[in-house]
Amino acid sequence: MSTHPFDDALELEPLGDGRFRGRTTAQYNNMVGPFGGVTAAILVRAIELPPDRLGDPVSLTVNFAGPVAEGPFDIQARAVRTNRSNQHWYLELSQDGTVATTATAVFGTRRTTWDALESSAPAVPDPADVDTVDFPEFIAWANNYEMRFTAGALTETESADSVATLWVRDSPPRPLDFASLTSMSDIFYPRVFQRRGKYVAAGTISLTVHYFVTAEDLAAQSDGYVLGTAHARRFHQGYFDQTAELWSTSGT
Amino acid sequence: MSTHPFDDALELEPLGDGRFRGRTTAQYNNMVGPFGGVTAAILVRAIELPPDRLGDPVSLTVNFAGPVAEGPFDIQARAVRTNRSNQHWYLELSQDGTVATTATAVFGTRRTTWDALESSAPAVPDPADVDTVDFPEFIAWANNYEMRFTAGALTETESADSVATLWVRDSPPRPLDFASLTSMSDIFYPRVFQRRGKYVAAGTISLTVHYFVTAEDLAAQSDGYVLGTAHARRFHQGYFDQTAELWSTSGT
Repeated sequence: MSTHPFDDALELEPLGDGRFRGRTTAQYNNMVGPFGGVTAAILVRAIELPPDRLGDPVSLTVNFAGPVAEGPFDIQARAVRTNRSNQHWYLELSQDGTVATTATAVFGTRRTTWDALESSAPAVPDPADVDTVDFPEFIAWANNYEMRFTAGALTETESADSVATLWVRDSPPRPLDFASLTSMSDIFYPRVFQRRGKYVAAGTISLTVHYFVTAEDLAAQSDGYVLGTAHARRFHQGYFDQTAELWSTSGT
Repeated sequence: MSTHPFDDALELEPLGDGRFRGRTTAQYNNMVGPFGGVTAAILVRAIELPPDRLGDPVSLTVNFAGPVAEGPFDIQARAVRTNRSNQHWYLELSQDGTVATTATAVFGTRRTTWDALESSAPAVPDPADVDTVDFPEFIAWANNYEMRFTAGALTETESADSVATLWVRDSPPRPLDFASLTSMSDIFYPRVFQRRGKYVAAGTISLTVHYFVTAEDLAAQSDGYVLGTAHARRFHQGYFDQTAELWSTSGT
């Protein structure tokens, strides 16, 4: 019996007092250091592990303060404040005492209220009718995702816009959970590659995820295809933004 | 000579080691506690004050962990990591030892690179051709802004969508800076009020701002009108999102 590479990458050894020891895995390497999505997922997992955690992810911000070197790392997770229905976290990921990543997270419980889905998923063909795309070998992490682009597949042609839309799931398939969904939120390769039709030095500096999905939604989604779409508003003086949505197979 | 109410609200007494003492001001009260925008602005100011700060705001996330009571508060700002071109911060705002707000921020320097503005500002009439809107008295902070809505003004009618678009500036006019721009990013009243056509219990739990503006852009903007537009994607089980853009008078 083998472990899924994502579960292997997310293994954390609890050291007590909100401290954990993890390590990078070659399967989720990016061009420099690990894929940011998997780093974000590990931070979510560090909150999920302690028994006193309240609720599920509502909001997460991960700031990539410096490169993570291949090898072991330490996570310190602290519940800064616990309320009746939500909990606020601060986390640091460090190597040899140097902070590589910071994060804040809000976890919370949900309740039935007035409900409205105002946005809608992009209209695209079924996953079976869209070809899979292979990424170059030096982007190791991409091999752990089955990606079927309906717009914005990585090419060597300049693009007039930065819109990328794709069906995606773990490869091999794996039932979605909060950690793997978090990782998927960073799956969109840098929008500047698409606009310019070439690789340039680019790395995520700050990633924020807002979650609507519940544990029940994740169970219903299981290992089905997620529809992702992303675009940038501006590329300016060394920074660009990237706004993405992840839609369930059922359209929420 | 009088101080602008915004500058009054942002007064901080440095206590050393990244600690500051501030206090709420009645002019920026919201229905419960101070307007979240001014809290976010004070956190930016706490980073700007120390002489060893590197660069200007690139990204900010503020988590509203609990209500801020009227009166004094303490801020602890810590530069977690300083790189060659950016600096990562963690901040806590507390009252009587209880954390009310956490934040992370990335500050950085910018450099000339490939540049593209992919989005465009909403097409709206000039500010002079749009009426100002008065907010009810119990939303005190709104009186410090001149707001001219072209869509989504607060009414008692249900709305089919959550799009709000308005020209806004400080009242009385005040040259824009990073702190006041940060405050403006939270100016959009809760989208659920607009959809439902009534006030319901709603508060910001997490606010993230990504900055493209430079100090030179702010100087050029001065006290001119900023064009704001916001919308929500989903209202679900007690949470909703709100995505906004703030455009300069010159359209960036």
